[in-house]
Amino acid sequence: MAEKAGVVKNKQVLLKNYAKGLAKESDLEISTESTIKLEVPEGSNGVLLKNLYLSCDPYLATIMKGTLHNPLFPVYSVGSPIKGFGVSKVLDSKHPNFNNGDLVWGETGWEEYSHIEKPDSFFKIEHKDIPLSYYTGLLGMTGLTAYVGFFEIGKPKKGEKVFVSAASGAVGQVVGQFAKLSGCYVVGSAGSEEKVDLLKNKLGFDDAFNYKEEHDLVAAALKRYFPEGIDIYFDNVGGKTLDAVLPNMNMHGRISVCGMISQYNAEKPDPLHNSACILFKRLRVEGFQVYECFHLYPKLLEFAVPYIQENKITCVEDIVEGLENGPAALVGLYSGRNVGKQVIKVSSP
Amino acid sequence: MAEKAGVVKNKQVLLKNYAKGLAKESDLEISTESTIKLEVPEGSNGVLLKNLYLSCDPYLATIMKGTLHNPLFPVYSVGSPIKGFGVSKVLDSKHPNFNNGDLVWGETGWEEYSHIEKPDSFFKIEHKDIPLSYYTGLLGMTGLTAYVGFFEIGKPKKGEKVFVSAASGAVGQVVGQFAKLSGCYVVGSAGSEEKVDLLKNKLGFDDAFNYKEEHDLVAAALKRYFPEGIDIYFDNVGGKTLDAVLPNMNMHGRISVCGMISQYNAEKPDPLHNSACILFKRLRVEGFQVYECFHLYPKLLEFAVPYIQENKITCVEDIVEGLENGPAALVGLYSGRNVGKQVIKVSSP
Repeated sequence: MAEKAGVVKNKQVLLKNYAKGLAKESDLEISTESTIKLEVPEGSNGVLLKNLYLSCDPYLATIMKGTLHNPLFPVYSVGSPIKGFGVSKVLDSKHPNFNNGDLVWGETGWEEYSHIEKPDSFFKIEHKDIPLSYYTGLLGMTGLTAYVGFFEIGKPKKGEKVFVSAASGAVGQVVGQFAKLSGCYVVGSAGSEEKVDLLKNKLGFDDAFNYKEEHDLVAAALKRYFPEGIDIYFDNVGGKTLDAVLPNMNMHGRISVCGMISQYNAEKPDPLHNSACILFKRLRVEGFQVYECFHLYPKLLEFAVPYIQENKITCVEDIVEGLENGPAALVGLYSGRNVGKQVIKVSSP
Repeated sequence: MAEKAGVVKNKQVLLKNYAKGLAKESDLEISTESTIKLEVPEGSNGVLLKNLYLSCDPYLATIMKGTLHNPLFPVYSVGSPIKGFGVSKVLDSKHPNFNNGDLVWGETGWEEYSHIEKPDSFFKIEHKDIPLSYYTGLLGMTGLTAYVGFFEIGKPKKGEKVFVSAASGAVGQVVGQFAKLSGCYVVGSAGSEEKVDLLKNKLGFDDAFNYKEEHDLVAAALKRYFPEGIDIYFDNVGGKTLDAVLPNMNMHGRISVCGMISQYNAEKPDPLHNSACILFKRLRVEGFQVYECFHLYPKLLEFAVPYIQENKITCVEDIVEGLENGPAALVGLYSGRNVGKQVIKVSSP
């Protein structure tokens, strides 16, 4: 491993300043100043990683504000690389769980090489026949999010009716496919015709609609697509969509609250007018955070790997090449620029 | 049993017309016109009941509107007695489960005597050392509601912090006592000083406050009474109180949605502004309906009967004498006239 021999340049995406409101590209900067020695430093029991793929997720932009005081999430410091989930190769290991050459996924830095002092939470990649980028998506945090929210909280039964918002996004597309594999009827909403087409023609949704084309938001569309009501709503957006869903839920319906992207940067939150439906329809509305659910990862693998190997699940990815394109990709999530799971390819193994 | 010999007058509370909006006393009328033969009619396999106590519950006023199409609830017909839960004595039985002289509770008519064609859902009263009126409350549907909402949905752990709205009401007072018996800290809100005093000095709540005296509704009060946040909110009122509770909930908190009395007659529902807390705090918000939970009644008995026998649970009742005072008692629930569980005593066994 020639790289291990010496000291190399380490391109990084640094936090330039904490974001005010919606994170902008200019809140980040690309640095080529830093260098790194490609071995675990003296006295450390960690690993030295070469980062291959980085996962672009909306919550990263929230952390960039510096106001999120949540021990589950990483903290970003001005002048340091931001962090997120990624797929990496172990170049050097002083940790008993990892060997040089292992492929792993976990929380790493937005840089070419990272020294991880405590890599205990990293997962070793065992199924190497599956594209490595999938470990940022379907077989990474994204897939686990879909798994927990749909199966553990949604508790689907065959034949049930499932609605997914932001359905072409990273999590949504996985939920939709999980729903189909579970014998459910599934309809997704998305923000462009291209995405609607993707849902219907590539991801196997029973139907899909463009919420931007629906006049009274999604209420009328939901009535049309769910004449028998909704049993499970997988919520990625919150706000007005959640409010429109409530009266369309069936008795004993479940709302799995995974994200509320419409609310994160709202000056005033959208009010919910239909909360009484929770009572009248005996709904269960439950928020969750995948960071607390990594113990369920083996269940995701057990469920999803065979379907991937049989080509029964697709993963639509939007891969940008090069760390230097990371900031635009991250910020683009909020304008819906991406089609499918947004991934940054940093380098090849 | 002299009553059984013949035909007697049967005083009734009849629905005069469907209520428009909030039910009024004048939507009901007392009739002394009807007579009834005190035995099960020829060809019926039912029971003939002498009604002793009737339970006054807010949902009855909702049924009076005639617009509630819910197969779980009874239907009221204009000119017929309204129905609700009550305690009765079996005067005559053609049903294998019941014998003459049995004391039972279940859904009966608001009248002195009722013929119940299908009494299968009635419960036989085994613990006769406990005041019979308790079977409209603590050991009736009210107690079961509290049991299901607090234990099955709230899943309390010792030391957790519990907030109960409408805490001096039928269900609320039971929840508060269940919470104390479970080692929780419990604070209730109510609508008068008299009720607050009852909560603190008779029902053993750790604290209580009058929501009508709190300027920015209950938000400030909640901060004061729950400096460490709320783990379980037992919601009887919905609306603004629910909205104020959301930001005060702890991570993984549970909101057991039992009732939303503030919303039933609202022209416009109160909007919820804090729904994003469901996501950020990973809350579980769950509505339930006790009509679906009668299979859990033995668990309530097992839990509550020993505490009642040891005088460790109190039941504050507001008993009015005489069927003719029923309409005012029922309508009074909406103005908070009652202090404690509202019961109508129809007759003695």
